[in-house]
Amino acid sequence: MNKGIIGIVGGMGPDAGIALSKNIISQTIAKKDQEHLPQILYSVPESIPDRTEYIMGNEKTNPAYRIAQILIEMESIGVRYAALACNSAHAPQIFDVIMSELNDNYSRIKLLHMIRETGIFIKNQFPGKKKVGILGTTGTFHTRQYDIINESGLDTVYLSEADQRSLHSAIYHPSFGIKSNAGKITEETGTIVNNSIISLIDRGAQVIVLGCTELPLVFSDPLYNDVPVIDTSLVTARALIKAHTPEKLKPW
Amino acid sequence: MNKGIIGIVGGMGPDAGIALSKNIISQTIAKKDQEHLPQILYSVPESIPDRTEYIMGNEKTNPAYRIAQILIEMESIGVRYAALACNSAHAPQIFDVIMSELNDNYSRIKLLHMIRETGIFIKNQFPGKKKVGILGTTGTFHTRQYDIINESGLDTVYLSEADQRSLHSAIYHPSFGIKSNAGKITEETGTIVNNSIISLIDRGAQVIVLGCTELPLVFSDPLYNDVPVIDTSLVTARALIKAHTPEKLKPW
Repeated sequence: MNKGIIGIVGGMGPDAGIALSKNIISQTIAKKDQEHLPQILYSVPESIPDRTEYIMGNEKTNPAYRIAQILIEMESIGVRYAALACNSAHAPQIFDVIMSELNDNYSRIKLLHMIRETGIFIKNQFPGKKKVGILGTTGTFHTRQYDIINESGLDTVYLSEADQRSLHSAIYHPSFGIKSNAGKITEETGTIVNNSIISLIDRGAQVIVLGCTELPLVFSDPLYNDVPVIDTSLVTARALIKAHTPEKLKPW
Repeated sequence: MNKGIIGIVGGMGPDAGIALSKNIISQTIAKKDQEHLPQILYSVPESIPDRTEYIMGNEKTNPAYRIAQILIEMESIGVRYAALACNSAHAPQIFDVIMSELNDNYSRIKLLHMIRETGIFIKNQFPGKKKVGILGTTGTFHTRQYDIINESGLDTVYLSEADQRSLHSAIYHPSFGIKSNAGKITEETGTIVNNSIISLIDRGAQVIVLGCTELPLVFSDPLYNDVPVIDTSLVTARALIKAHTPEKLKPW
């Protein structure tokens, strides 16, 4: 049976798409080129409106329509399992519209849900830990989109409004933000992300989720002191491999 | 005018495809996601026969046919400028067949030639330097495929047969080779690549070309002592940006 190709909707931002693509490779058991899984990274950032701006009401066009189009185009060339390399794109007002567009177009693509997968992952890997601290864009913050992990019996912990504003600037600021620096990390950004993790632990978080695919570019350790720090891109890569060819998934 | 999408044939190996994709991002002038260029990375390694094995006569199927198919599929979803993230795929017995397949299918895709672009780049950036040392797979070595840079008035310098065997193992060895370690660099590999650079300089090379897209994963400095070390993936990324939207190319 042809298992088809793994598709990544990238470009949100471009580095996050590449990180997901790279995570698929690093989590696959393979001893030569030909043993790696087939994947397509589709990164057309100029045509996808900003997710956070849409959630916040500053952008009129729902990015869902373009994202769904990309998924349908990828399906036409063989993609069967897909993911979006962007946490904010999983806000219900975007993700639900993508799903309904796919449905209207009779798409049979299996689109994973990054945030649901993160909940399942935490539940399985850290069964004793219930309080999950969420770092992400202001879009992710205001929509409380991570509350969906309640399904896995987990509680979410967020930053204060002020700390959230500061974290958002670390991602989006035109001079020192991650998105403006093509993956190069400025000192400001590093400090803000670090302080945000500390704030969440102070608020009781037992696990930290880097709930924006740009954040692992800044903080790449799997632990902060003893607190697990979850890279949602890595979790999604593993879920994609498991969906496509489970026997090729590296042990955790 | 719609400039179309930049397409990368990746998977040869998978990390090299990602490196080229990442180089396009890092060489583009952009202050937010939406200012980055559209690109598709098409990485289906399981379906592309090994290029070096084909050149050496150990593999019957010419990888050119599958590569051309991928280019044609990418063209069908909007790709107009493309490159192959693999030096060995530019050996004439592969590249010429790709070009003739594209032609037979009335393709209008503009496929850049990584090695020609490298010659042009060296000529423009280092006008005083004529002797170019070539590091690459044994496929690249035996076909002398870099001799095409003679077009730019450059002379090539290669390793001895024995040193070449050693370098090839650094790329392909099933336990310590780059391709088996998903971009993680082993000590053996680092030492071999370093020694190979020294050997070429001893043989008179004034510039070193990392003529296999896996090598910059091991050696990422732009200089070895005072000798420029050229990452062909970076050169190709810049050529793609220049072809697509020249005003977005970062200064060198």
